Amino acid sequence: MRSVKAALVQMRVTEDKERNLRSASDAVRRAADAGAQVVCLPEMFVCPYERHAFLAAREARGGRIWSALAQMAAGSRVVLVGGSFPEAAEGRLYNTCFVFDAAGRQIARHRKVHLFDIDIAGGQRFRESDTFSPGADLTVFDTPLGRFGVVICFDIRFPELMQLMALYGAEAVFVPASFNMTTGPAHWQLLFRARALDAQIFLLGCSAARDARSRYVAYGHSLAISPWGTVLAELGAQPETLLVTLDLDEALRTRAQIPVMAGARRTDLYELRWQRGENLKKPRG
Amino acid sequence: MRSVKAALVQMRVTEDKERNLRSASDAVRRAADAGAQVVCLPEMFVCPYERHAFLAAREARGGRIWSALAQMAAGSRVVLVGGSFPEAAEGRLYNTCFVFDAAGRQIARHRKVHLFDIDIAGGQRFRESDTFSPGADLTVFDTPLGRFGVVICFDIRFPELMQLMALYGAEAVFVPASFNMTTGPAHWQLLFRARALDAQIFLLGCSAARDARSRYVAYGHSLAISPWGTVLAELGAQPETLLVTLDLDEALRTRAQIPVMAGARRTDLYELRWQRGENLKKPRG
Repeated sequence: MRSVKAALVQMRVTEDKERNLRSASDAVRRAADAGAQVVCLPEMFVCPYERHAFLAAREARGGRIWSALAQMAAGSRVVLVGGSFPEAAEGRLYNTCFVFDAAGRQIARHRKVHLFDIDIAGGQRFRESDTFSPGADLTVFDTPLGRFGVVICFDIRFPELMQLMALYGAEAVFVPASFNMTTGPAHWQLLFRARALDAQIFLLGCSAARDARSRYVAYGHSLAISPWGTVLAELGAQPETLLVTLDLDEALRTRAQIPVMAGARRTDLYELRWQRGENLKKPRG
Repeated sequence: MRSVKAALVQMRVTEDKERNLRSASDAVRRAADAGAQVVCLPEMFVCPYERHAFLAAREARGGRIWSALAQMAAGSRVVLVGGSFPEAAEGRLYNTCFVFDAAGRQIARHRKVHLFDIDIAGGQRFRESDTFSPGADLTVFDTPLGRFGVVICFDIRFPELMQLMALYGAEAVFVPASFNMTTGPAHWQLLFRARALDAQIFLLGCSAARDARSRYVAYGHSLAISPWGTVLAELGAQPETLLVTLDLDEALRTRAQIPVMAGARRTDLYELRWQRGENLKKPRG
């Protein structure tokens, strides 16, 4: 059994960037002390989920936030999926997740591909594309623990991206996310279970804790789903860290039982492909 | 509001083909009397879900079963999604659904594309490919009620096919199906809700009623799902017909609120396409 202990840090996010970095760092250290080998932080863990806060918190790669993440990974000897922060680059802003190995070296970067523009009658409105530019990454990377992937929040609504990540060998995909009180109850667990079942991989969603006083209220409910579509663990709304053990060989066993991702796809009839060659490992098998 | 009244006939399937045809015919008439405009029958509604029964019940297009379906449609003035039966053609067998308009003319044919070969430890085993050849259809068709689609059972596990059907303009997809007591509780509702939410269309699953004495025990639970991923109605295990009204414009409203299928797909990054040109209408929009 190739077993991996993962931690999802459902932290309280405040308006104080330094305080958020300390909270994250403390939680990563506690998770490592509890045996976690890979730790994930929430989307926009450095600031509230609002345009003015994104602008105030923005930083370049190599800046204060990026360096703090590298130090958390190295200091705690964990693979760190660094949530996301507003990355300033090339005169633009991206909603970006950096991933670090246990020596604190950056090993992957995911800029959110699908920006979150929704307008639900009587519910949540948000136009992320007013602030951010979209990324162009399919983010699958190797670690000593296994081959992992990252997408960010709204990306999970698009089955094509997740199917491609599984075809490129991802065994577990981490999803820093911030669903809200409209989309959370309606779709959060459903989307994670569906993606895991379809791609026959582990899915791990990490949200900030719920703060009813904030303008954009995060749903919470960080969770881990098996390749069979089973909820392995799910938090509530409060600040807490979810610790879960993943048996990575379960994906292989699931595929042997229901060969959806092991030969039954009708690639003679339909074709799904990533149009850019960059940033990719060779597909397996 | 473009409103369509649909009926899903969760009938008891016996070993007597003629009795099954009478049950289906009676149920279609009662559904039409109750106002149904489109009626769907279960997968393999003519025989038990077993290899020897498939071989015994097999018929060609234009035979007894096909003609009975045409008569049901014309006699009750409904669009009829004729479940499926073992279609003998070109020296092979297919698991085939024929669709008829309210005048009894065949307007579509779907041969199951993904054959059901599973082997679940401690659960269900089945090798449909021992008996059937796979189809090669993407089945989307126009009716006076709207543009509909059909897939059969195991086809629903493959997101690519459903996404393509939605891209080709399907507003509601009917799924004659026969999940079992392993996959039903685990995945039935999850898969239907996920496909509906991802493609932002209506999904309707029609199973045979559960018969604990049969060798392959159908799960039942015929159901209708909205483009928002909501369960509109779901039956239990007993013989019953589900009647549900679909507001086809809900797909448009859902897409305006969460533009997953209305512009947010990153077709500059990934490409999903149907490799054969046959049997397709032009995509909308």
